[in-house]
Amino acid sequence: MSTGVRKEQDSLGSLAVPKSALWGIHTERAILNFPISGIQLGTHRHLVRALAVVKKAAALTNAELGLIPADIGQAIASACDTVASGEVDDAFPVDVIQGGAGTSTNMNANEVIANLALQSLGHPRGSYGVIDPIGHVNKCQSTNDVYPTAVRLALVFALEDLLERLALLSAAFAERGQAFAVIPKVGRTQLQDAVPMTLGQEFTAFAVTLEEDQRRLREAAALLTECSLGATAIGTGITADPLYVERVIDKLSAVSGVQVTRAHDFVEATWDTGAFMTFSGALKRTAIKLSKICSDLRLLSSGPQTGLAEIRLPPRQAGSSIMPGKVNPVVPEVVNQIAFFVAGADVTVTMAADNGQLQLNAFEPVIAHALLQSLSWLTNGCDVLRELCVTGIEANEELLRSRARASTAQATALLPVLGYAVAAEVAHRALVSGQSVIDIAISEGLLLPEQVEALMNV
Amino acid sequence: MSTGVRKEQDSLGSLAVPKSALWGIHTERAILNFPISGIQLGTHRHLVRALAVVKKAAALTNAELGLIPADIGQAIASACDTVASGEVDDAFPVDVIQGGAGTSTNMNANEVIANLALQSLGHPRGSYGVIDPIGHVNKCQSTNDVYPTAVRLALVFALEDLLERLALLSAAFAERGQAFAVIPKVGRTQLQDAVPMTLGQEFTAFAVTLEEDQRRLREAAALLTECSLGATAIGTGITADPLYVERVIDKLSAVSGVQVTRAHDFVEATWDTGAFMTFSGALKRTAIKLSKICSDLRLLSSGPQTGLAEIRLPPRQAGSSIMPGKVNPVVPEVVNQIAFFVAGADVTVTMAADNGQLQLNAFEPVIAHALLQSLSWLTNGCDVLRELCVTGIEANEELLRSRARASTAQATALLPVLGYAVAAEVAHRALVSGQSVIDIAISEGLLLPEQVEALMNV
Amino acid sequence: MSTGVRKEQDSLGSLAVPKSALWGIHTERAILNFPISGIQLGTHRHLVRALAVVKKAAALTNAELGLIPADIGQAIASACDTVASGEVDDAFPVDVIQGGAGTSTNMNANEVIANLALQSLGHPRGSYGVIDPIGHVNKCQSTNDVYPTAVRLALVFALEDLLERLALLSAAFAERGQAFAVIPKVGRTQLQDAVPMTLGQEFTAFAVTLEEDQRRLREAAALLTECSLGATAIGTGITADPLYVERVIDKLSAVSGVQVTRAHDFVEATWDTGAFMTFSGALKRTAIKLSKICSDLRLLSSGPQTGLAEIRLPPRQAGSSIMPGKVNPVVPEVVNQIAFFVAGADVTVTMAADNGQLQLNAFEPVIAHALLQSLSWLTNGCDVLRELCVTGIEANEELLRSRARASTAQATALLPVLGYAVAAEVAHRALVSGQSVIDIAISEGLLLPEQVEALMNV
Amino acid sequence: MSTGVRKEQDSLGSLAVPKSALWGIHTERAILNFPISGIQLGTHRHLVRALAVVKKAAALTNAELGLIPADIGQAIASACDTVASGEVDDAFPVDVIQGGAGTSTNMNANEVIANLALQSLGHPRGSYGVIDPIGHVNKCQSTNDVYPTAVRLALVFALEDLLERLALLSAAFAERGQAFAVIPKVGRTQLQDAVPMTLGQEFTAFAVTLEEDQRRLREAAALLTECSLGATAIGTGITADPLYVERVIDKLSAVSGVQVTRAHDFVEATWDTGAFMTFSGALKRTAIKLSKICSDLRLLSSGPQTGLAEIRLPPRQAGSSIMPGKVNPVVPEVVNQIAFFVAGADVTVTMAADNGQLQLNAFEPVIAHALLQSLSWLTNGCDVLRELCVTGIEANEELLRSRARASTAQATALLPVLGYAVAAEVAHRALVSGQSVIDIAISEGLLLPEQVEALMNV
Repeated sequence: MSTGVRKEQDSLGSLAVPKSALWGIHTERAILNFPISGIQLGTHRHLVRALAVVKKAAALTNAELGLIPADIGQAIASACDTVASGEVDDAFPVDVIQGGAGTSTNMNANEVIANLALQSLGHPRGSYGVIDPIGHVNKCQSTNDVYPTAVRLALVFALEDLLERLALLSAAFAERGQAFAVIPKVGRTQLQDAVPMTLGQEFTAFAVTLEEDQRRLREAAALLTECSLGATAIGTGITADPLYVERVIDKLSAVSGVQVTRAHDFVEATWDTGAFMTFSGALKRTAIKLSKICSDLRLLSSGPQTGLAEIRLPPRQAGSSIMPGKVNPVVPEVVNQIAFFVAGADVTVTMAADNGQLQLNAFEPVIAHALLQSLSWLTNGCDVLRELCVTGIEANEELLRSRARASTAQATALLPVLGYAVAAEVAHRALVSGQSVIDIAISEGLLLPEQVEALMNV
Repeated sequence: MSTGVRKEQDSLGSLAVPKSALWGIHTERAILNFPISGIQLGTHRHLVRALAVVKKAAALTNAELGLIPADIGQAIASACDTVASGEVDDAFPVDVIQGGAGTSTNMNANEVIANLALQSLGHPRGSYGVIDPIGHVNKCQSTNDVYPTAVRLALVFALEDLLERLALLSAAFAERGQAFAVIPKVGRTQLQDAVPMTLGQEFTAFAVTLEEDQRRLREAAALLTECSLGATAIGTGITADPLYVERVIDKLSAVSGVQVTRAHDFVEATWDTGAFMTFSGALKRTAIKLSKICSDLRLLSSGPQTGLAEIRLPPRQAGSSIMPGKVNPVVPEVVNQIAFFVAGADVTVTMAADNGQLQLNAFEPVIAHALLQSLSWLTNGCDVLRELCVTGIEANEELLRSRARASTAQATALLPVLGYAVAAEVAHRALVSGQSVIDIAISEGLLLPEQVEALMNV
Repeated sequence: MSTGVRKEQDSLGSLAVPKSALWGIHTERAILNFPISGIQLGTHRHLVRALAVVKKAAALTNAELGLIPADIGQAIASACDTVASGEVDDAFPVDVIQGGAGTSTNMNANEVIANLALQSLGHPRGSYGVIDPIGHVNKCQSTNDVYPTAVRLALVFALEDLLERLALLSAAFAERGQAFAVIPKVGRTQLQDAVPMTLGQEFTAFAVTLEEDQRRLREAAALLTECSLGATAIGTGITADPLYVERVIDKLSAVSGVQVTRAHDFVEATWDTGAFMTFSGALKRTAIKLSKICSDLRLLSSGPQTGLAEIRLPPRQAGSSIMPGKVNPVVPEVVNQIAFFVAGADVTVTMAADNGQLQLNAFEPVIAHALLQSLSWLTNGCDVLRELCVTGIEANEELLRSRARASTAQATALLPVLGYAVAAEVAHRALVSGQSVIDIAISEGLLLPEQVEALMNV
Repeated sequence: MSTGVRKEQDSLGSLAVPKSALWGIHTERAILNFPISGIQLGTHRHLVRALAVVKKAAALTNAELGLIPADIGQAIASACDTVASGEVDDAFPVDVIQGGAGTSTNMNANEVIANLALQSLGHPRGSYGVIDPIGHVNKCQSTNDVYPTAVRLALVFALEDLLERLALLSAAFAERGQAFAVIPKVGRTQLQDAVPMTLGQEFTAFAVTLEEDQRRLREAAALLTECSLGATAIGTGITADPLYVERVIDKLSAVSGVQVTRAHDFVEATWDTGAFMTFSGALKRTAIKLSKICSDLRLLSSGPQTGLAEIRLPPRQAGSSIMPGKVNPVVPEVVNQIAFFVAGADVTVTMAADNGQLQLNAFEPVIAHALLQSLSWLTNGCDVLRELCVTGIEANEELLRSRARASTAQATALLPVLGYAVAAEVAHRALVSGQSVIDIAISEGLLLPEQVEALMNV
């Protein structure tokens, strides 16, 4: 063996692996086979953690049932803790875009865990005669139950981050809604002046819609907690000990802290990607909500002189080298773009789901990457939107008040008292004369000032 | 007035309407403005019914509160029943693809209902001084709360059809699953021979997955029953009597037979399209499940001589003029195509949702059409798939049995007894010699015949 | 035989066909097999015409080569003319969404043409012993070369309509660009006030972009004129006379008036859907251009009091029952929605293309429908946008001029003379004082009035 | 100033920048504003190179016209060469997903180039009084003409890589087509046995289709070479010297080695994203072609015992831990997934294009990232598909020959001699007896062996 490498064997032959590598031959082959995106598995922190959690649940179950020796089971479980902690993310170099239905990801985990376990027992890397990545770490498992289970858990973990940031963002909108509660403005439908409302109502609605989306995301995530761990290659349970199948899911709940349930039909569960589609749809929904809100923020802050100019976003960077003083809505703009990406990712997920064949969907790696990246970008987007934009939004209160007062949209508010015909006539005179609807109504004795107050109270 | 037409007036002027038409000037303008798809509103049976139901709930509430005269209220309610029954679908000629956020659809309903009510009271069409499409039929309403509410109800109605057919389809797959329960076959992952299973397990999984999707669709539909009726143009309730707002939703539940609830925040609810996105996602999920199943059916029935040839689909039409005896899987193929359409419609819905601005989403008409058409096509697809394909599927049992017996995939089943190394060697010898794994294992005394029986029992 | 029907035979058995029907048993089976969309093939006028044109080219070639009797060839050719004229579109009842890779469409054409030919020779319908839908009309053909060829031609025909309307729309924008040529305005980037321009430049750009898209559509359509007619089922030419293959494409050029060329590799051409993807992409591009323009028109016409209010769209229908005088941009709104549909259709086409397998893509019917419907809707959208909107757009010239004069955006124009620092200071003072940049610059002697004129000349 | 950082100023205030950083305050703000994807601009090698090329063309033009001093122009040009070489990619840390329409990318380039130029003249970083990122490096430019021009060039550069690998891949398929030229097989339509062909024809068609796509990609790229450099912020040329506008595009052609042309209408060109949409569509087309081919390869290599088993893909990694000897088509699988991603990216591009407003599309950064990533992944996908799969594909020749001989599909080939009725009868007898069509035809004296040879010669 040459210096710096060790030789490992598999059914295709032998290959050199860097001596210091925690991974082994299967991972090494995957590195050679999938030089696609340059994005390493280890950058999906939540997925590496989820793999470790699944492997630990399996190891503890195998050890309890005597399917692997107790000391080996313990060493594997400890190794899983190390992997879960994030200390060895660099040991997961396989590309996130990979063929093989996740086999390379599973084997990367098996090999790293085996070598960490060997290390803890004082054995050199690659001593698979003592602890075998397949025979011990992958005992009673196959990629086809381990990988989807880990991806599901990873999405649940990653969603926790997103939900936390969505809640903060929603709260920030609610706070602005409170601050703007009594600032009147003209509401718009189809971009045309409609009827009065307050700026507070507009911002509160943003908070409300994002609160609802948190509930929708949680519902979608609930489907992810149903998993097929234990039924191995095609859901028939072949090669897994029946007791293992019975126990491993409860163990997974205990180890992961997520209440996981057994799939109703393991054969179906092995090829089904329905939960991923539902989750992707929920992410897209949230993304589109954020995009709609950000488009509104950009529109409401358009100007300063020739736009709607109802609000001011905090300036975050100089907008232009040739237009002195120009400041652009760069933060909402980046969130719009995240949304366009997430909507594209949903099509990726759809096509991957559609192309599944027979007992397995071979395209889960691209589903996993699309969803984990969407989650990560959305989480970051919520943060920048809140911290760098929403909390600093200010209202152009004077302008809003004077416009609300001048608007013929007021006429609609007077309908219940004046009736349609009179209100329409007042509105027409207002538009022609430049006077406000209310001033005309009061000056002509159609309304008392206190009536106006009551009618305008939106 | 020239023979054959009557003149009607609106704020833009006057226009001739066919004398016999139940619709009026607003509808007539819409016909001129939107000659886009040639698909008339009246072809969306569920939407016309839903409009009638909403208008009836409003009329009854208005009459109860004395906001419109009792006799007029009664005439309007009766007219709504006529519209709901489907008798006058031809009176809804506006194009399904329309600008104006549904105003033309709402006005078409208002006008038809007013004229039907007038007719019942013995007045000629267009006598809006007696019963006014806006003043009476649309009382306390605006397009912005009526239209989304009607679209939501229409989707709920249309979903009932789909759910019924999905249940039947699912049952048909379950029945085939039972019929094929003991036929062994070689399961495949990544299109490569994997481990043994039964054909019954494969078909049962199709039933299971479609049963689950019925639950998902029902959950998504639940969001549609929350509606903003009563809060008119932008959700502030302006121009609607507060008592009307309080009562109309309960009335709608009573009239529609669907348990409808009040939106949490009317301002948000007026522009929000989240429920449509979620519903679209659920439809797409079901469509993709059906597509995956149909791709499997086509694959499993490929042949007859050089394909997988595991099952036979009932022949439905001659496949080729130049290839004697060729029969193609035309029914699964049509279902695949429905799914591709539904997936496209989801992108349409996404873009429409994303483009909503400020207090209203002006693009709900294309959302409504995309979803109603998807529902209709999926419903029809389930029917033809069940009736013309699934119920007549037969297994090539002999071939499946002989392949299962010959497959080296059997080796995996023997792992627990033989261990990996011995099993692999037996598998290798089987592949080389052409003998079956089981025959070798028995003839070499590695297994007793009764052990084989137990191990192979998938 | 019972009254009103005739019995026909195929390889699956016999079936009753309405006595008066021009179609036969294959069509009748297809009606039963594909009750999906309710949209009949005959509504795709261009496709029916294209089928007739292809069949005529084949019949003339077959007759010239003596492969079918001359009189029969002549009768078939005449029948094709009848079909091409649009007289018998009702005789094409098969659903546009169908399995079988277009077989039902091809057979519908074969049967109608056979029966029309029989009729012209004085034979009753169904006398296939005299003229056979397969043996004569479909001679040297199969669905797999006829159907894609016809779809391609249909798209070329339909595109002619779209190009004509796009040219008119483009001209209408150019005319408005001329009319607005000297009206100054403040240009906007990222919705923020930027630098001066004219309203004419803005509208001229709309004309320019649509002119360019006409070129792109023509380029994409050029790929559609390469076709595989003559190489029958899988591109190997099996069952077609070699002389027929040599001649039929030239004949098709002559009959169709479209310069058609032979596919470079018939085997590839038989399964390839590349030209459809490219064409779909070109349609989507045009749709998105129109959508962007319509979003701009809606934005520029927002108001009347609290929006940008730079232009006025001609009112087309009353906008609201409760907001007196409200007029909405309903025509641009409908065009936006057409674009969302076309973008969805592109995903449908993509998935259909992706799912093609081995020697044929079985999903061309949904591709054909998606593209033909997109073309039709876009064509109609161009018409309404031009006639009902663009030609009547007016500028709020006074407002634009006063805003342009007041805008600090003027400062950028002064940069070359004043330098960045002085210009920025003038801009700052203008924003604070409410005076215009130009007034300040002139009053402070920084610029001569004639210099201003030159600098502002955008 | 604290150790390790330097303070820089912009219109929003001051900020600390790492002392060693080549970038400045605008970049630093962007780092803080856009912590979204973690993917740094510098990883898009082609874009960094393109930015440098554009900046060099501008600097040389500015220097020639005396708009900047000659020595500064020279220093900037040299700095651009350094950036173009790839030596300082680490100095481009801004996130690829960013708001501001590319301003941060442009400023990152301006700052790095200024500091490299300063360094070459012996000045410390940040000495912008000597060479200013805006005043000198960005002279006569704005983000709105520089950024789109650079993105276009980057795509052209990146496409060169893809075209090279596509050509190699296409050649590899052609080579296999030659190798398999005389191996007969049964062609399939709709997955059903159809008529005879050779395996060589099937592989040659893969080569042909990828050759055609290279032409399509080149055509789409031609649109990218039309650019708006020189017309600055909104296409009116404001702040740029007229002579600069006239000369800079020719200079860009010279510097870049790409023949670049001037946009026809600069106002339109500044907001138009049509060329990106067309290019995205072309990439998607190629991706879907690759996906279709890879799905075919997976299908043709399915087995080994119960699949089509017509070809063998070279084994690249052990497929399963529990199924001895299983080898999966991992390379085609990864290419399928790349295609699903590229199709999703096209939706991202579409939505970004659709959301452009008025004089600029603010969402070009996500367009740029989507396209550059698609190009990179496709390029890598072509490489692995060729090297690790296609070149090693082998035919199961014996199986193919025996199946072709046994297939009733042969009957179609005999049609021209035997006629439909006799051929059908022979086919029927073949299917029932298990004898081959040819054996029956010869033994019954219907055909001479030499006739068979001629007829079967596909």
